[in-house]
Amino acid sequence: MTRFAFSIAATNGAARTGAIAMARGTIRTPAFMPVGTAATVKAMKPGDVAASGADIILGNTYHLMLRPGAERVAKLGGLHRFMGWDGPILTDSGGYQVMSLSELIKVTEEGVSFKSHLDGTRHMLSPERSIEVQRLLGSDIVMAFDELVPTTSTAAQQREAMERSMRWAKRSREEFDRGGDHAGTAAIFGIQQGALDAQLRQASAEALIDIGFDGYAVGGLAVGEGQAAMLGCLDFAVDMLPADAPRYLMGVGKPDDIVEAVVRGIDMFDCVLPTRSGRTGQAFTADGPLNLRNARFAEDQEPIEPECPCPTCAQFERAYVHHLVKSGEILGAMLMTEHNLWFYQRLMQGLREAIGAGRLVAYAEDFLGRYRG
Amino acid sequence: MTRFAFSIAATNGAARTGAIAMARGTIRTPAFMPVGTAATVKAMKPGDVAASGADIILGNTYHLMLRPGAERVAKLGGLHRFMGWDGPILTDSGGYQVMSLSELIKVTEEGVSFKSHLDGTRHMLSPERSIEVQRLLGSDIVMAFDELVPTTSTAAQQREAMERSMRWAKRSREEFDRGGDHAGTAAIFGIQQGALDAQLRQASAEALIDIGFDGYAVGGLAVGEGQAAMLGCLDFAVDMLPADAPRYLMGVGKPDDIVEAVVRGIDMFDCVLPTRSGRTGQAFTADGPLNLRNARFAEDQEPIEPECPCPTCAQFERAYVHHLVKSGEILGAMLMTEHNLWFYQRLMQGLREAIGAGRLVAYAEDFLGRYRG
Repeated sequence: MTRFAFSIAATNGAARTGAIAMARGTIRTPAFMPVGTAATVKAMKPGDVAASGADIILGNTYHLMLRPGAERVAKLGGLHRFMGWDGPILTDSGGYQVMSLSELIKVTEEGVSFKSHLDGTRHMLSPERSIEVQRLLGSDIVMAFDELVPTTSTAAQQREAMERSMRWAKRSREEFDRGGDHAGTAAIFGIQQGALDAQLRQASAEALIDIGFDGYAVGGLAVGEGQAAMLGCLDFAVDMLPADAPRYLMGVGKPDDIVEAVVRGIDMFDCVLPTRSGRTGQAFTADGPLNLRNARFAEDQEPIEPECPCPTCAQFERAYVHHLVKSGEILGAMLMTEHNLWFYQRLMQGLREAIGAGRLVAYAEDFLGRYRG
Repeated sequence: MTRFAFSIAATNGAARTGAIAMARGTIRTPAFMPVGTAATVKAMKPGDVAASGADIILGNTYHLMLRPGAERVAKLGGLHRFMGWDGPILTDSGGYQVMSLSELIKVTEEGVSFKSHLDGTRHMLSPERSIEVQRLLGSDIVMAFDELVPTTSTAAQQREAMERSMRWAKRSREEFDRGGDHAGTAAIFGIQQGALDAQLRQASAEALIDIGFDGYAVGGLAVGEGQAAMLGCLDFAVDMLPADAPRYLMGVGKPDDIVEAVVRGIDMFDCVLPTRSGRTGQAFTADGPLNLRNARFAEDQEPIEPECPCPTCAQFERAYVHHLVKSGEILGAMLMTEHNLWFYQRLMQGLREAIGAGRLVAYAEDFLGRYRG
């Protein structure tokens, strides 16, 4: 059984296309991972998520530890069985959500105390507990537990947080390795921090490489710094990470963010945008996003995106989706989400093919020119 | 092309099983029609509604005339194309919803003025306008426009409303016949009124038969009178309607209501119960309803109903559905609704087979004994 094997089939500039072989399936890269926060990719049956082209989904440690609870998921046979998804699952560490969603009580060297946003109960996450939760869920790709500080933090705070995250990365790796059978089938990724500072990013990368991980994430971006700043950071940060391991840009992003990041050597992405937008009436198309709530679609008999082969575009007109969205109908969220997930997966397929054919620059220029109008 | 042909394959006591052949498809009877209020059976794709065994769905004239508007649906090619359902659609007349949902302005011999519950705009429904709206929608089975009065009305008020409904039934039939092509492909049903009074029901039935309809509905029941009173009314009301036409009990009902009504000779049903319950966490099973919100299901690894062949029960455990319902996840509504629609259609199939085999009494006794526990 293959635990984790990343192979690069072709490169094109800094970009690469290839595959990650794991026990539960192969992940084609560059890959987009739909987000399944609470053990469901919202408004989608798992079989339809797979049909969209997704090889792997993301589960949220923070949400799942609070409800239904990691021990309960383990008792029920793990997250894959629980939610009916038999491909690989990457779980985040909970570090980001605990900062953004919960009421923080205390951050110490040991870890983070917080109150649940659901019911106010007190909980603790540390590197050891985060890895334990991810093991209980049965995660295929475990993320190291890290500390995120606001982009408005001082340089000193950012250095301190990065250095603590590296100590936590080491504790995460050690706890992962203690995991017996799970460590023999799962992989663990470290997360580079250091905000927009090249020296901090370099120090972070060196610390992670010293510990050793199966893959490396670029963390702390897409948190409000803007696209130009994010891409500027990728311009130096990506190359600091090992070329022979997957590089994962967490929480990104808009379609044009993804294209720009692939050009810069990123292999994996996750984002709530296609699913969340699907529930608020925003559809992604090659000509840019459409707000289906807009009255101009009320009698529009085109599919959301005429060239799209997704089940929504194959059967329904914009006028109908507009009606559903305006009426707050669940089917509107279902159809929009499905289209958006197909759009993202078609984009990844296009990127993979362009890299394989050595024409990524032209593909990216064409895509961005059309998408940004 | 067959416009409307009802054939009875077998009878068993007062019950019958057979089929209604129409241009868009054949409706096996006794039939349950899922409700697609706003051009969607809530939380279901149309293909999955068909896969549950539904031959026909119901659309609501009141909701559709307000949003997206009947003229707009007609312009877009009709309700079937709009919502992606190519089987028969029965539309109600709007009479019930205008009384129960809107702010009434005035009821006259001409019709009903009301304010939309959506935006307060003023509208009018009359027999002529109701039939016109149903024609614009492209309805396959059009319902006559009637007046519904509360069950707490006086005997005089009930007589008056019934008599007016019969005058409106005649105007509905006349408007339907003026409908040119649509009258050549669609059918029209009259609605018996008269509350729980046998003499009023008899007078209503005679008036409808005198006008002549393709099918006959029993109206004004399941509005709070209780199951015993409803069944008591069916004991005399059904037999007043022609035996060679379909009999439709509007807005019914719970699974045990349906079994009892089929025993009394009813052929068609519609109800929001399976879909609405699916969105609030109630699942139907042969052993009675289950509230999946209940904490006792949190670690229950059985399917909702172990003997059920529906996609939900084939793939998911109660513990997962419980988690989704408790978390307010859209997928919870999707999976529960699908199970409930399958349950209703399996019940109808069981009833049809039992009538065909001449063992309806035993089937009904078994079902009711188990369902009512």
